[in-house]
Amino acid sequence: MTGIFRFEILSQDGAARAGLITTSRGKIRTPAFIPVGTAATVKAMHPETVKALGADIVLANTYHLMLRPGAERIAMLGGLHSFMNWPWPILTDSGGFQVMSLAKLRKLDENGVTFQSHIDGTRYVLTPERAMEIQDLLGSDIAMQFDECVRLPCAEAEARRAMNLSLRWAEQSKAAFVAKPGCALFGIVQGGAAGAMRIESAKALADMGFDGYALGGLAVGEPRMVMLAMIECVLPWIPCAKPRYLMGVGTPDDLLESVRRGIDMFDCVLPTRAGRHGLAYTRSGRLNLRNARHADDPSPVDSLSSSAAARNYSRAYLHHLVKAGEILGMMLLTEINLAYYQDFMQDIRRAIAAGRFTDFCDAAKTAWRTGETSGKLDA
Amino acid sequence: MTGIFRFEILSQDGAARAGLITTSRGKIRTPAFIPVGTAATVKAMHPETVKALGADIVLANTYHLMLRPGAERIAMLGGLHSFMNWPWPILTDSGGFQVMSLAKLRKLDENGVTFQSHIDGTRYVLTPERAMEIQDLLGSDIAMQFDECVRLPCAEAEARRAMNLSLRWAEQSKAAFVAKPGCALFGIVQGGAAGAMRIESAKALADMGFDGYALGGLAVGEPRMVMLAMIECVLPWIPCAKPRYLMGVGTPDDLLESVRRGIDMFDCVLPTRAGRHGLAYTRSGRLNLRNARHADDPSPVDSLSSSAAARNYSRAYLHHLVKAGEILGMMLLTEINLAYYQDFMQDIRRAIAAGRFTDFCDAAKTAWRTGETSGKLDA
Repeated sequence: MTGIFRFEILSQDGAARAGLITTSRGKIRTPAFIPVGTAATVKAMHPETVKALGADIVLANTYHLMLRPGAERIAMLGGLHSFMNWPWPILTDSGGFQVMSLAKLRKLDENGVTFQSHIDGTRYVLTPERAMEIQDLLGSDIAMQFDECVRLPCAEAEARRAMNLSLRWAEQSKAAFVAKPGCALFGIVQGGAAGAMRIESAKALADMGFDGYALGGLAVGEPRMVMLAMIECVLPWIPCAKPRYLMGVGTPDDLLESVRRGIDMFDCVLPTRAGRHGLAYTRSGRLNLRNARHADDPSPVDSLSSSAAARNYSRAYLHHLVKAGEILGMMLLTEINLAYYQDFMQDIRRAIAAGRFTDFCDAAKTAWRTGETSGKLDA
Repeated sequence: MTGIFRFEILSQDGAARAGLITTSRGKIRTPAFIPVGTAATVKAMHPETVKALGADIVLANTYHLMLRPGAERIAMLGGLHSFMNWPWPILTDSGGFQVMSLAKLRKLDENGVTFQSHIDGTRYVLTPERAMEIQDLLGSDIAMQFDECVRLPCAEAEARRAMNLSLRWAEQSKAAFVAKPGCALFGIVQGGAAGAMRIESAKALADMGFDGYALGGLAVGEPRMVMLAMIECVLPWIPCAKPRYLMGVGTPDDLLESVRRGIDMFDCVLPTRAGRHGLAYTRSGRLNLRNARHADDPSPVDSLSSSAAARNYSRAYLHHLVKAGEILGMMLLTEINLAYYQDFMQDIRRAIAAGRFTDFCDAAKTAWRTGETSGKLDA
């Protein structure tokens, strides 16, 4: 691997920024949407198609991969990029979030978390040091600090305890991080729904110094305005020359409103999960292909899409595939959604570069209202 | 649609024949393997990939499509080719076999079958006339007569009754068939495991005159030698200038032995179904990717395959995908298997053309024994 990890801001429009992250495995155009490849596969997609649709980077989950097939095994097989046939950048989370949401019999203390695999009950320990080691074994290009994420709403004392623990784990993660040229470690701002606590977390992380900063523990049940308020609180306190990553978000409208406030990176299962459940994201809003009104509709999902899947198959056929539970339905709708998300990010980047981001937001929101739904998905 | 349906035998090697079927939607190289696209999709495959792997034709099931989404709906949407985005030839079965194996509360009489949908219990009637109408609505290039297929073993009286009924339905099917230029109707030889009855059926169908002749009711539980014996009985009695289609068969070894006896066409769910269950067909025999011995194996399924899926992903990764129940595992293994089957048919055609079919059979069987299993799958 060669080169260094760096971030350049190419243009700004209000608080919105368009930029470029350079890693040893390739460049990432920002604002970036990162498709989720949980178990070393973006579900129902060939990796080369994910790339062709415009993704510069994918996310893989430390929790899932440490359980199956195992980080040491992936390292022995040449690393995650080779394993999943994706030679471009990979961001790995630290496992903390999924330990909380998926694992059984969790026991958390100052050192880390002991838990049982949700697959076979095997006992594991995850500490800041082990989370860093696993991400190094995987060959991550952007690693995340180990943190504790609480569900919202959450008592302030509980949020404070988790925030402070996450700060101590941030220091330990940084100390344990195996720095390689062109690779990065991001800190994660916690603090629940309390602005003051979020700011405290952001300032402490900024003092430690990370290659990028994430907002964690959002989009976990709180009202959307809380999420946007937390972004507004936090961003002034993290170094503006570093990439800002909003984890686990979101709907197209969430992306617009977060970019408007200065976010550079997103990941979310929404386009892929929705595709497996019969939902299509389009410029005219969201379509539910399960709906019987599509049964006789010969029109494609979007005749102007960059995605062949959106142009070449009728809504009637997609409706049929979804109703019949056919895998091709999941394949085509996942592709349609990832194409929509990546085209949307490209349009956002162009709008920022042209200084017309506000107009772009207005036009996108108007267009969503012409379709079946508002373009938002609450599930 | 233009042109006429025709079959040319280009070369023979013993009883094995290599030829070319011309339909209005394209040519079919024989011996041909027809991937099964039950519900208007070859499961887990993009149609353009099915074509790229070498398929000249796919099969679609009348029974499944009449139930969902409905033949009249498909016709209104422009026909099955447009519906499933497959502009090349399509063979449709007549529904008879699946009514027997899938439908609930069947009632069979001289006129046809009354049954309930296995999906929602709706009552349907299928007669020779309706089976022809449905295949016409779908826009089939090769339609099959309506027949009754019995499970083997079967009492001789029962096999005779079904065979005679199938012959009457053959006449009715032929009378009801909507002939279009470049499209064909095939008769189906029945008669259980009794050679004399099979010959009687074949002679009667040959007298009626069809565009091609199928052997039905085989590979339904009988020993493989019975199937091969039935082929040997029947083929001398059907016009040698017409294509001969062995329905629902089979393993690579079944294909070899049937081609050796003069069969020109096959369809089978085996490569696609096996792919969805973790099995890969290769020149070195069958691999079960579920097997733990693949967990650390960095080698591809077949580095010399024409399929990128067989060359570019490790056995370790495929094992992981299969164990994790990932859709990509089904996609890649289905592709690997269809590529193997189509390459195999191409090799068979070349071997026949070169007059070295027997040597090819010996070499293929020897190569299968070098792998994990014998290349045969009994499931």
